[in-house]
Amino acid sequence: MQAVIIASGEGRRMSQKRKDSPKPLLKLLGLTLIERVILSLKQTGVVEEILIVVGYQGEKIKKALGGGEKYGVKINYIENPYWRRGNGISVVRVKNQIKGNFLLLMADHIFEYTIVNEIVREELNGYDAVLAVDTTPAEYLDVNDATKVKLESDKITQIGKHLEEYEGFDCGIFLCSPKVFDYLQEAISQGKESLTDGMQKIASIGRLKAFDIGEKFWIDIDTPSTLQEAQRILCHRIGKESDGFISRRLNRPISLIFTRYLVKTNLTPNSISLLSFALCVVAGMFFMGGSYFLIVIGGIITQLASILDGCDGEVARLKFKVSEYGGWFDALLDRYADAFVILGMVLGILKSKGGISPWIWGFVAISGSFTNSYSAAKYDLIRKFKKRKWRFGRDTRYFIIFLGTLFNQLYFTLISLGVITNFISLRRMWVLRKD
Amino acid sequence: MQAVIIASGEGRRMSQKRKDSPKPLLKLLGLTLIERVILSLKQTGVVEEILIVVGYQGEKIKKALGGGEKYGVKINYIENPYWRRGNGISVVRVKNQIKGNFLLLMADHIFEYTIVNEIVREELNGYDAVLAVDTTPAEYLDVNDATKVKLESDKITQIGKHLEEYEGFDCGIFLCSPKVFDYLQEAISQGKESLTDGMQKIASIGRLKAFDIGEKFWIDIDTPSTLQEAQRILCHRIGKESDGFISRRLNRPISLIFTRYLVKTNLTPNSISLLSFALCVVAGMFFMGGSYFLIVIGGIITQLASILDGCDGEVARLKFKVSEYGGWFDALLDRYADAFVILGMVLGILKSKGGISPWIWGFVAISGSFTNSYSAAKYDLIRKFKKRKWRFGRDTRYFIIFLGTLFNQLYFTLISLGVITNFISLRRMWVLRKD
Repeated sequence: MQAVIIASGEGRRMSQKRKDSPKPLLKLLGLTLIERVILSLKQTGVVEEILIVVGYQGEKIKKALGGGEKYGVKINYIENPYWRRGNGISVVRVKNQIKGNFLLLMADHIFEYTIVNEIVREELNGYDAVLAVDTTPAEYLDVNDATKVKLESDKITQIGKHLEEYEGFDCGIFLCSPKVFDYLQEAISQGKESLTDGMQKIASIGRLKAFDIGEKFWIDIDTPSTLQEAQRILCHRIGKESDGFISRRLNRPISLIFTRYLVKTNLTPNSISLLSFALCVVAGMFFMGGSYFLIVIGGIITQLASILDGCDGEVARLKFKVSEYGGWFDALLDRYADAFVILGMVLGILKSKGGISPWIWGFVAISGSFTNSYSAAKYDLIRKFKKRKWRFGRDTRYFIIFLGTLFNQLYFTLISLGVITNFISLRRMWVLRKD
Repeated sequence: MQAVIIASGEGRRMSQKRKDSPKPLLKLLGLTLIERVILSLKQTGVVEEILIVVGYQGEKIKKALGGGEKYGVKINYIENPYWRRGNGISVVRVKNQIKGNFLLLMADHIFEYTIVNEIVREELNGYDAVLAVDTTPAEYLDVNDATKVKLESDKITQIGKHLEEYEGFDCGIFLCSPKVFDYLQEAISQGKESLTDGMQKIASIGRLKAFDIGEKFWIDIDTPSTLQEAQRILCHRIGKESDGFISRRLNRPISLIFTRYLVKTNLTPNSISLLSFALCVVAGMFFMGGSYFLIVIGGIITQLASILDGCDGEVARLKFKVSEYGGWFDALLDRYADAFVILGMVLGILKSKGGISPWIWGFVAISGSFTNSYSAAKYDLIRKFKKRKWRFGRDTRYFIIFLGTLFNQLYFTLISLGVITNFISLRRMWVLRKD
């Protein structure tokens, strides 16, 4: 399917923020707004070509996005020299490029990509367009400025900014038949040049359908404060379901602070994984020193590595770079990191205590850590149905090491790790057996 | 759907083998023939009730199978006192219990359960029954004794043992509409009492459909030699696709010999996993001894454990006891077994060589072994497309240990293990990166 993105406006309310760039090129967590729209469309897997209507500073947008090669999509541009007039004119400009039903989106509306997947499944029969509608808007929606819709079951009867009565809000995502151009042209010929004017024409003859997005996320980025809000929400949405207690309460809030900086760099998620791994190697070397001072530094680095271990996934999710390989690579590196940390602890303990016991406990701890990770995936599957709150994972193991080093208890910490991790692996064997 | 199993005949050609049991209770790799039919039907997930027609020594069959509770299916019995006459009479006996279309199977026909899943998807419109037909029979089929079918595209025009021209063979699996009873009764009233006679009636009016099973497995167990053949084929079919070179060429052939005995015992697959684990612990203890004699014994036990590690899965597959938990439990135990074996090796090496190097190499080897297993699942997924023949897994690791101990090279073996396993894990990270 073809998708049209309207990126022609000036975005005057954002003028301070965007300085000399057009609004679609405004950065939000490392990606421009229009890049987020493009990558969301790519994620749907249903869009073959993206047509971008440019106007205000169109050359800058073209230069930034190119033919779409770097996003793995096909992008073509249509220029609208009349961008100062209503945005209905921008839509009509693409008429000759359109081959069938198409998606229509705004460059400054960020959204959960599944909304698009669902709206394309809507049947058009009897309708000329479907509009994504939010009937339960979040508290950050600027009600005064938003476009409202009046509904009769799933039919939109009225659409506009100044409706007295309304049941929902226009999310700026449309599925259109090519007939939409006729209505827009008719409205424009009557001096009503906005997209909403054209849609009101369709609504008034009962041919505009509403698609209720339910609880899904979307935001119209119109002001500096909504940009802030979008940043907050996107960060909030990337926590992992499998996060343990330490991750959720301690690591995740801190890693998100790091991530806000990391997304602005060119660091890939995999290089962040490597960085976290390197920190663990360094921590192991500090443990080897054996003195309280070095051990505490090692402990702090371990906890830092544990926090940074969340950033690779966060950056991947925020920058549309999630890959199966990335998750696997990170997990495998984590196992090696565990080995270095535990080996460092054993060697540190040996500075003050000889014999084979520290080595044996090192073996016990490494076996427990490995089998914990090894058994976790399957255990999580079953755990979902049980809604447990506590999950013992790497976050907890590293936090125990961190605490243990603060109290200069390297050996006791190693023994505790060995006992706890193996207890958990054996317990999982036992618990699942009964399921 | 209801399924009818005909288990009323005497099976005279098997009389020597079965002694004083009826043929359906003949054992094949730890399960009776009729148990295999019942468990295959259960595996299809489409059978709600099994009706078994008993005759010759019916009480023994009823006593052996009960109400089906132990198989997780519902079994009811219908008695046919006229079992000495044609088997068409046995089918007609169930008429009053049948509520709609039903499956009809023979107690002495072993088959791949997916044949049933596919035959129930066949449309009956215009037909009164569908028969599973084998047009490319295996070399072990006794052509003289088999029931043949003559085909016209997917219509069976003739069915019988003595056809001159034929295109396929009757596999003994039918999907029937209740109309089948009328044809059978008509045939019986004319003195033609076999099921084949009744089916010929349906075929002659063009209402018997053929379902070609393709390459799928089935066998009619009619003679002691076909029983032998079935045993050979079932064992051959349970090798795992992910088997490495050592598994395929060395371990699997030996483990199958063990398995033929193990299936006859009450040992569950999970207890076989535990047994293999226990052997590894014992092997580790022998390694700790450090002398050549003890090390060689340890090495032999290690290799034995590696072979036995295949038996749990084999027994599970042969006895319809495959479970997700079983595979997970076995894998987790294997990781602990690896830890015990490597720890034993380190302690054995320390008998003749002090210092921390053996310990460090122990850490390296355990990390490599763990990460090999940890990364294998994902690697296998991608490997499938590449059709590699060699897969480095636990079978190879244990074979290296076995060889190393024969040459009294415990330390060199540990170092080799460490180097090879970690090289492989790093290589996987690298190879997949490029995919």
